[in-house]
This record gives sequence, structure tokens and C-alpha cells, in this order.
Amino acid sequence: MESNRREIEVMANLLGSNDLQADVNRTHFRKNNCLAINVIGSPGSGKTTLLEKTLPLLSAELHVGVIEGDIFTNKDADRIAVYKVPVIQINTGGACHLDSKMVSKVLPEFDWKALDLMVIENVGNLVCPADFDLGEAFKVIVLSIVEGDDKPSKYPVIFRNAQAVVLNKMDLEGLTDVNMDHMKRDIRQINPDIQIFEVSCRNGNGLTEWVNWLTQKAKDFKEFKE
Amino acid sequence: MESNRREIEVMANLLGSNDLQADVNRTHFRKNNCLAINVIGSPGSGKTTLLEKTLPLLSAELHVGVIEGDIFTNKDADRIAVYKVPVIQINTGGACHLDSKMVSKVLPEFDWKALDLMVIENVGNLVCPADFDLGEAFKVIVLSIVEGDDKPSKYPVIFRNAQAVVLNKMDLEGLTDVNMDHMKRDIRQINPDIQIFEVSCRNGNGLTEWVNWLTQKAKDFKEFKE
Repeated sequence: MESNRREIEVMANLLGSNDLQADVNRTHFRKNNCLAINVIGSPGSGKTTLLEKTLPLLSAELHVGVIEGDIFTNKDADRIAVYKVPVIQINTGGACHLDSKMVSKVLPEFDWKALDLMVIENVGNLVCPADFDLGEAFKVIVLSIVEGDDKPSKYPVIFRNAQAVVLNKMDLEGLTDVNMDHMKRDIRQINPDIQIFEVSCRNGNGLTEWVNWLTQKAKDFKEFKE
Repeated sequence: MESNRREIEVMANLLGSNDLQADVNRTHFRKNNCLAINVIGSPGSGKTTLLEKTLPLLSAELHVGVIEGDIFTNKDADRIAVYKVPVIQINTGGACHLDSKMVSKVLPEFDWKALDLMVIENVGNLVCPADFDLGEAFKVIVLSIVEGDDKPSKYPVIFRNAQAVVLNKMDLEGLTDVNMDHMKRDIRQINPDIQIFEVSCRNGNGLTEWVNWLTQKAKDFKEFKE
């Protein structure tokens, strides 16, 4: 028990220190009228692909920056750079999630006067990133429906803490055993206020609704006066 | 820096204490001539489904026990119990991986004289479980090919530490952008000795090779004398 208690204390300290820096990051985003979102999902849920499909649709109205979080490699930042948006890769070097300090270190790299939206793509992990506030305005989950309809009830923390979920790879619906009614029922049971988008990045279905919603959120954030 | 150093020390202590208990577990499995494997993969990669398809094919030759790891819910253990094998669910209550102490606590629940193979299904997470030895003989990765061919190079630690990888959901190959040659090339680059199985749990293709290999491993383990 002694050992367990110590581990819990250590975790609480780590999270407390993370939250302090997250508030500093949040003030930075607020001062610059830039909506920051924290995009979370399993490996291969389609976070980077969603971003690739979203960026060309957003760029007419919004100036977007991207922070890519990965354990190793610059592959995701390389994919995003093609879209001519400012992008920084963070390699966590083993850590299974971004934290607010990692994010704070790269903030000076961006020209904040030129940005309306900062998309922070987290490490592929449906568990640990849910606990680490980065200073974002809200979290967005990307869930590949191929993962199965039991995932919301098995990973409820992240669904409770997110403002939107993009159910991706909808083009494969009929080819898997996923029950979309069960999936959406479970998501709404965990979080009745969450926005649900059904999207196929492959055929483009559902992207417009997601992009319109995100654009409106960025505009609302800009116009919001405290 | 001070804070970073402290975090690393804490992590090293946790891992050190985990390894000690893992060795105790390993001795337990060895003494009982029971091959223990640690099955790791992202949420929705198909770990439980692979087990559902594997159990009926194994049971003619081997007596199997199952430990199911999940953050919340008994859903996976309920699915496995249908196959009339002894199964225990561990709920980590938030922790993103099993550790050796959690496993040790449930070991007395099994009748070890009656077991040839213990399958430990880890929490759905391609990152953290790679660092926590449970006392298993080896790790097996389940990777849904729908996650994309860049996953081995982005999550190399687990591929370096595993003895086999089951590339699952092969029935969806032509419907995604996955390049199986790139996938397998990257896996072999990280770990030239790893066994690669291409499987569809949906149509059954590839299951026989996987089951034969696993059966042989359990037999070899039983016959092995130190």
C-alpha cells in the first residue's frame, strides 16, 4: 500500500505541475485570439489524415498552425508541411503523451499575429493524453470506427473530457461488425453534450460539417471578449 | 531540469520494482510449465477477437487460461468466458497498462496444474505496455492493418521487444491505403527475427499458421528443461 500511495502522490505532483503550465499556455492562446485544440486518438485512427483533408478546406477562412506530437519520427510534420502551414514536430522520445511544458517550448516558434487556429495533434494513444491539459480550448477525439463500437465505454475518460468526436473511416462501415447506433448511444451516455461527426477521409463524406463547425468555433473564440 | 531529472528517477524506480515482481511471475510460469504471453496492441486492433478465434483452435491440444487487462469494464472477460476457459479480468482503474504486481495478484485464482498456456491481454495501448515486463515468455503485437503502414516506425519500441506480430484485418487490405510491403519491410528493419502473421479474424485467413506457431511454442516451453 505504501508503494501505491507514493506512486499516486508522484502522479498528482506531475499533473499539478502540468496544469500550472497549461494555464500559462491557455493565457497565451487567449491573448493571441487563437483557438487551440488538442486532437487525441489511437494510433492509426486517422488524426493526421483528417488534418490533411481539413487544412485545404479551412485555409480560405482561417490561418492555421500545427503542432505534431509523436514519440519518434517527423513523418507527420512532413505530411502537414506540404499544405504550406507552419508546423512544428515535437518528439517525446518515449513519452506516451504531450504535456504542457513540451508545448510551451515550441510556442515561440510561431508567428502568433498570423494565426487563428492552432491544431495540436497528440501522440497516438487513447488513454494517457486524456489526463494532460495542454492549455487547449477543448479536446477533439478521432476514433476509427474499425476500432469497434465498444471503445467509448472502454475508454470513457477521454470521451467525458472532449467537446467533439470525429468517427472516421465511415467508408468501411458495412465491411466491419461495428454497430454505429451502439457506438453513438454509448458516446452520448458518457457525454451528452459532445458533437459527433461521421466522416470518411477517404471519400470526403462528412468533412464539410466538421470543417464548418471548427471554423465557427475559431470565429467565436476570436470574437469572445472577457 | 531538476524537475525532469526527478521524473526520470521516479520512472526508473517504478520500472525497477516492476521488473523484480516480473521475475517472480516468470519463475511461477516456469515452475508450472505454462507458457505466458503478453498480447499488446492499440484499442481496436483486434486482440480480443483474435483470442476468440484462436481459443477454439487451440483447445484440442492445449489448456489455456486468460488474463484480460482493461481500464474499465469486464466486456473482454465476458467475451472470453463463452469459450469455457478460465479467465480473470483486471481493471486497472485508469492505468494505461498492466504491471507485474497486478498480474501477480490474480495468479492464485488459476489452477496451474491444468494450464499449458496463459494469454495475458494488455490494455489497448501501443506505447506504455512495451515498458512493463509482466513475467511473460514473450510479447505478441496485434496490429490492425487499417492503422496504416507507418505504425511500426512510429512505435518502434514494442516491435523491437516482441517475438511475433499479428497483422490483423487483412480482409480490408484493398480498401485502405496500406502498403503491406512497406509495413513488413519496416517491421523487419526494426526486428529482423520477429514472426509476422497476416490474419483476417473476419474470414479466418492466416489463423492456422498463427495457431500452429503458438501451439509449438507452448509445447517447446513445456519440454524445455533448464
